[in-house]
Amino acid sequence: LGIPQYTSGRYYEHTPVGVVNGLAYTPKGGHSFYIETIAEEGKPVSGTPPRLRTTGKLGEVMLESSSIAYTFAKNFLYFIDPNNNFFETHNLHMHFPEGAIPKEGPSAGIAIVTSLLSLALNEPALNNLGMTGEVTITGKVLPIGGVKEKTIGAKRSSLKTIIFPATNRVHFEELASYVKEGIDVQYASDYKDVFVLAFPNKKDLLENAIQ
Amino acid sequence: LGIPQYTSGRYYEHTPVGVVNGLAYTPKGGHSFYIETIAEEGKPVSGTPPRLRTTGKLGEVMLESSSIAYTFAKNFLYFIDPNNNFFETHNLHMHFPEGAIPKEGPSAGIAIVTSLLSLALNEPALNNLGMTGEVTITGKVLPIGGVKEKTIGAKRSSLKTIIFPATNRVHFEELASYVKEGIDVQYASDYKDVFVLAFPNKKDLLENAIQ
Amino acid sequence: LGIPQYTSGRYYEHTPVGVVNGLAYTPKGGHSFYIETIAEEGKPVSGTPPRLRTTGKLGEVMLESSSIAYTFAKNFLYFIDPNNNFFETHNLHMHFPEGAIPKEGPSAGIAIVTSLLSLALNEPALNNLGMTGEVTITGKVLPIGGVKEKTIGAKRSSLKTIIFPATNRVHFEELASYVKEGIDVQYASDYKDVFVLAFPNKKDLLENAIQ
Repeated sequence: LGIPQYTSGRYYEHTPVGVVNGLAYTPKGGHSFYIETIAEEGKPVSGTPPRLRTTGKLGEVMLESSSIAYTFAKNFLYFIDPNNNFFETHNLHMHFPEGAIPKEGPSAGIAIVTSLLSLALNEPALNNLGMTGEVTITGKVLPIGGVKEKTIGAKRSSLKTIIFPATNRVHFEELASYVKEGIDVQYASDYKDVFVLAFPNKKDLLENAIQ
Repeated sequence: LGIPQYTSGRYYEHTPVGVVNGLAYTPKGGHSFYIETIAEEGKPVSGTPPRLRTTGKLGEVMLESSSIAYTFAKNFLYFIDPNNNFFETHNLHMHFPEGAIPKEGPSAGIAIVTSLLSLALNEPALNNLGMTGEVTITGKVLPIGGVKEKTIGAKRSSLKTIIFPATNRVHFEELASYVKEGIDVQYASDYKDVFVLAFPNKKDLLENAIQ
Repeated sequence: LGIPQYTSGRYYEHTPVGVVNGLAYTPKGGHSFYIETIAEEGKPVSGTPPRLRTTGKLGEVMLESSSIAYTFAKNFLYFIDPNNNFFETHNLHMHFPEGAIPKEGPSAGIAIVTSLLSLALNEPALNNLGMTGEVTITGKVLPIGGVKEKTIGAKRSSLKTIIFPATNRVHFEELASYVKEGIDVQYASDYKDVFVLAFPNKKDLLENAIQ
């Protein structure tokens, strides 16, 4: 039978706070998938740092990617909103449905950061937005593979906007017109670029912090 | 020799608080199985969070599924009954008899949540009810496999009602009439749908919380 | 498909505080890579020591190398700047992009120390500087392999200066002229030699400590 494939399709019409569309590809094609993060009931135990628990059959690189994204999201939130103590006061649980499908690689980085910030800011990400890109601990956005498959998968899920790493622009532009048409593609070289696209109502926070 | 098969049959006439019927299938057919959860004697150690211990030869995905269900059940209980501090004050032990049979996959998700909530609310689930469905950390119910086998297995155990994921409706409806007859099938796309079916006496809690 | 290769190229024009260029080589050639360290938001939990978390698919030797570098950097900082309590008051997260590429070996030692000291001193390392060398727990710099490949990789990334271990001088000098030209090569036998090259504005700290 082999490795299970994504079967559930899209099950949010509007992604709520904490939920973001990632983009993946396998030898069988590309697809969108959800990243869901919630705050766990109950305060972190006094004397232990708050933590991010992850589930969804994640491989080693993806676990590290979650750790990087968590560290970065905490620092980024402090940069744009120093009085927001959400991450210090909550344990988080991030799940990648569907639970039987192995998930690996660093390319969900910017989507994981966005899921965490959505929850911390209590602001849903722009609807019908999908994104893919490795993130570094300083917020740089690094290239990913599968631009063609991810574009097709995003359109199949009726996403309207995709964010790709800026260094992948060349890969998108060389695609056939029929693949490129019908979706708005944006590029990011730094997580700041992702933030203003994903949270248009919150971009003042970032602009004020930069000044 | 080979992998052990379920042999014990049904051993509760009325499932008590904390016990729920799940539905599984293997290449040899479908069957119902019990999920049993009890509160452990003794309070959680001060300064350590309460926990859910699991036994029953669970595979990696099923262990993660239990973790997701536990997080979700705590948040769901807080949503419907914020003064209920059961999960904060008890360590839990969830067992999946028969202990020699390996169990894997995410499809027990809604049944695990229901077992936990039954215990927390001190309310038995509807009798003669079986259920199967993956649950996400936000409570969405995702499709499962083996609709035909699970239906046959549920009827063999004299269950009267099955809950399937809404996205599996098509799979049930295409079954032969002699398979479909003699059992009441309900569908759930969100755990809220499961809750009102499993706990008819508690549905006011949910309705009041939603308003 | 095989093992993923570095693809992102150079993405900092000026390396910020905490970021240093290392040099690596594989059977497919040499390249520069970034080491990125940041201080995590939130103070270390009272009663637990501050720590360095590492990510980036590091092998066992490289994990130990990070541990050695962390111990050495704390002692070295105390030697040159005893009032600087940065390492006592911050948890650190060091990441080696790109996350899917396995990284192994001790040769990033001096670069890891430099990344840590850059952060503690709030001083960026000299720009366009790359370095490679194993470091011992007392600060001695030991030889590395791949001098030719690393030189070529550094030039491809437009680095202007490389630090090699002094014991590798013979390996550099035997290279063809066209490989050697166009880059300034410096040698280090002790981390002190690295420090004055990487942090020219801070060399007084070291000179005062030595007297």
